[in-house]
Amino acid sequence: MIQTVSKLYVMEDKINEFLEVFKGMIEPTQKEKGYIEYEIYQDEEDPALLIVLEKWESKEDFDNHLQSKHFNKIVPEMVKLMRKEGELNICKRAL
Amino acid sequence: MIQTVSKLYVMEDKINEFLEVFKGMIEPTQKEKGYIEYEIYQDEEDPALLIVLEKWESKEDFDNHLQSKHFNKIVPEMVKLMRKEGELNICKRAL
Repeated sequence: MIQTVSKLYVMEDKINEFLEVFKGMIEPTQKEKGYIEYEIYQDEEDPALLIVLEKWESKEDFDNHLQSKHFNKIVPEMVKLMRKEGELNICKRAL
Repeated sequence: MIQTVSKLYVMEDKINEFLEVFKGMIEPTQKEKGYIEYEIYQDEEDPALLIVLEKWESKEDFDNHLQSKHFNKIVPEMVKLMRKEGELNICKRAL
């Protein structure tokens, strides 16, 4: 199982638009092989910082997700609404 | 429900020691009011970057956690083994 942590720095005036675009990712992602969890959170201090937490059965499943049609169609639209590059951590349980 | 994301930057030669110290947090934290989830992950690219993901029923429950005896006894020991200040994001579900 892998856990990914993605910090997404959205333009302050595009948060709702970004979330609308992101919504298109949820259903197709939940249908992918190895999908476990796919949640988006909003930082309380900086509402324009959104954090996506994903759990996948394997790294391979996550890599397939990155190659998926919906990912490559929607993520570029999300990037247009971001104020700077995001951060992605791909992790394994430490304990 | 709140989700916290804590990035902890451990000294490269103190990872195992850090995890041993951190173990002392798990059981008492799981007994606290409002505890839902408390997991520690290790970044695949930087094994000295540990990410703690916590879910709590409320912000108040999380604040009580920060005031708890075990937190104030153990976290200072963890900080001694860190190479730089950590990052804490306190979040709510965005969707």
